[in-house]
Amino acid sequence: MIEKNGGKEQESVLSAGDTKEMRAVVLTGFGGLNKLRVTKKAMPEPQEGEVKIRVKACGLNFLDLMVRQGNIDNPPKTPLVPGFECAGIVEAMGDNTKGFEIGDRVMAFVNYNAWAEVVCTSLDFVYKIPDDMTFPEAAAFSMNFVAAYMMLFEVANLREGMSVLVHSAGGGVGQAVAQLCSTVPNVTVFGTASPFKHEAIKDSVTHLFDRNADYVQEVKKISPEGVDIVLDCLCGENTGKGLGLLRPLGTYILYGSSNMVTGETKSFFSFAKSWWQVEKVNPIKLYEENKVIAGFSLLNLLFKQGRSGTVKTVVQKLISLYEQKKIKPVVDSLWALEEVKEAMQRIHDRGNIGKLILDVEKSPTPLMANDSTETSEAGEEEEEHEGDNDNKERMPFIQ
Amino acid sequence: MIEKNGGKEQESVLSAGDTKEMRAVVLTGFGGLNKLRVTKKAMPEPQEGEVKIRVKACGLNFLDLMVRQGNIDNPPKTPLVPGFECAGIVEAMGDNTKGFEIGDRVMAFVNYNAWAEVVCTSLDFVYKIPDDMTFPEAAAFSMNFVAAYMMLFEVANLREGMSVLVHSAGGGVGQAVAQLCSTVPNVTVFGTASPFKHEAIKDSVTHLFDRNADYVQEVKKISPEGVDIVLDCLCGENTGKGLGLLRPLGTYILYGSSNMVTGETKSFFSFAKSWWQVEKVNPIKLYEENKVIAGFSLLNLLFKQGRSGTVKTVVQKLISLYEQKKIKPVVDSLWALEEVKEAMQRIHDRGNIGKLILDVEKSPTPLMANDSTETSEAGEEEEEHEGDNDNKERMPFIQ
Repeated sequence: MIEKNGGKEQESVLSAGDTKEMRAVVLTGFGGLNKLRVTKKAMPEPQEGEVKIRVKACGLNFLDLMVRQGNIDNPPKTPLVPGFECAGIVEAMGDNTKGFEIGDRVMAFVNYNAWAEVVCTSLDFVYKIPDDMTFPEAAAFSMNFVAAYMMLFEVANLREGMSVLVHSAGGGVGQAVAQLCSTVPNVTVFGTASPFKHEAIKDSVTHLFDRNADYVQEVKKISPEGVDIVLDCLCGENTGKGLGLLRPLGTYILYGSSNMVTGETKSFFSFAKSWWQVEKVNPIKLYEENKVIAGFSLLNLLFKQGRSGTVKTVVQKLISLYEQKKIKPVVDSLWALEEVKEAMQRIHDRGNIGKLILDVEKSPTPLMANDSTETSEAGEEEEEHEGDNDNKERMPFIQ
Repeated sequence: MIEKNGGKEQESVLSAGDTKEMRAVVLTGFGGLNKLRVTKKAMPEPQEGEVKIRVKACGLNFLDLMVRQGNIDNPPKTPLVPGFECAGIVEAMGDNTKGFEIGDRVMAFVNYNAWAEVVCTSLDFVYKIPDDMTFPEAAAFSMNFVAAYMMLFEVANLREGMSVLVHSAGGGVGQAVAQLCSTVPNVTVFGTASPFKHEAIKDSVTHLFDRNADYVQEVKKISPEGVDIVLDCLCGENTGKGLGLLRPLGTYILYGSSNMVTGETKSFFSFAKSWWQVEKVNPIKLYEENKVIAGFSLLNLLFKQGRSGTVKTVVQKLISLYEQKKIKPVVDSLWALEEVKEAMQRIHDRGNIGKLILDVEKSPTPLMANDSTETSEAGEEEEEHEGDNDNKERMPFIQ
């Protein structure tokens, strides 16, 4: 994890500045990295039931890449401020926001608009955080741990002695899954990850495979009868493979479709390939084989399906596990808002171990982007990144 | 429940008879009721790891009708002895049968051959029963309660405050589901059943609908957001309806396909209709909707997929619930082996409330069948039953 303390100067500039405006990352249209810029936006004010949060840190997820490309169902209109999760301090409240006070340290889900200095969101999606949880940790916590917890314990019913396969074991969800599995006795975790991550994450996963290896064969070599739970964020042909790997009574959960993203911009070919390669499932086959197939989308659950109450209960359980030191978010690296392009490229190249965080108070490192903070168009060097899979070389400051 | 004590004479005849032979129900070929007869078969002897059971009572399931019709995947060859569950007394044991003794009162799963005076089965599928559990209760217990328990608690993860829809709420599984739901606080059970059963089962189910009503509309009137768990033994178009009724994070479980049975013999039309009307499921849709679809076949789990250990654990939990008087099998009626056709007709006509039991020591009632016990071809009156849906009139002795 890196954290360069270049934010102090920045903060003083802001606190002296215009409080009617704030900085935010804006996506000007769906497409490549050049559609992202940092600009000033009108300061949002909380409506009834909403909390106004001075954002300290935001989470960056693979889904944000798909949003950038417009590679999602029913994309909203651009320009928009991306981002679905953040952590910060309550600065103001609308009416009917009992339970929160100005100064509360919180983490929150937002239906877009998280990547900004200030965010307003319904208290349904806001959770107080423990005193010893840093803001980057909190921004790394909510989405990944809630998704991992709900998939393992609410959808799949993980119990003692079971086995779990997770793709992208080095990513934010992958690390959350591995940690949560370790809270249950005798759980075997199979994970796929790029070879360069293996040394760093080998203690969190029982059996690690190269993400380019034939994981079906690798798992079967170790466990011929298969696994109890498959968590798939890839989609496409991996759905059929995952179902095939299930033991009887096992559960396959699709929670993403990152295979749809192959380049910097939306590819109709990879989209169609992922969509059509998904084997449609005959329920009678599930009956004969005693198998379970599920889908999990935390954002739909929160923002389309009104299940914020369920999620709130899960967050409380997770905070309790955090306080017992049973789980701890893994932060890969911190980035200034102006560095969002580099951060996105890193997640695209799967260079991260744990979560990428936008640190709102951080200044861009001179190595990464220019220093202009307002209406800047950072990252002109993006063309250099295409096809560059070795982030370690490109960003030597990452430890 | 009826129980006519006509078995005593029968027993003495048998005990004086040839111990190299036993009576059994035999299916001579796939088809209608006339393919069933009671005949003498060679006495089976236990192999290594097997227990020999003097059978007192056998369970009759809807699946047995499908077997009779040959309406199952990979049907075995005929002639065969049907039946998958029984209860009785251990009479002998093969080698390596530690844990059991002669005289033990047991219930057991068998991969066919249950409907006989004597059965041998692996001790993997044999469970001791409590002293106060009668043999008919035990024969009504294993299949229905194990299936209901595993679907509710292992596949679907039933918890406080959830809602469940079950078809055939008056049947053996339906009543087991209702009782198990009542062990969890604040669970709402929606059930469908023939109207004449409503009075008898109304206390076990929160909301009862006519099985011919539009249950989707009925459920939505009461619970517009749907239900958490749908248990479907019908298949066909009900799969799509069930999935549509699920709340987010809800689970649909297919555990049978009784809609394939429309008449006395296998109907290609109803088979094809059920098979093709099953909507194949796109995992991406499950992802968007946060839904779970599962199949459950207890017999495949036991006899094809080697999960007898899991089932044994479940049986122990269920026996504990029985001993705490939280659950109790509902026995609809007892039938002599020679009355198997009438019993099958009753289940086909959905006349039963709870489980139909073959009582091995019972003599046929004069009203129901002739008194010949050996190589008899009982039930010549079967033609009268076709299309007769009013069992109460046809069998006035049923209370």
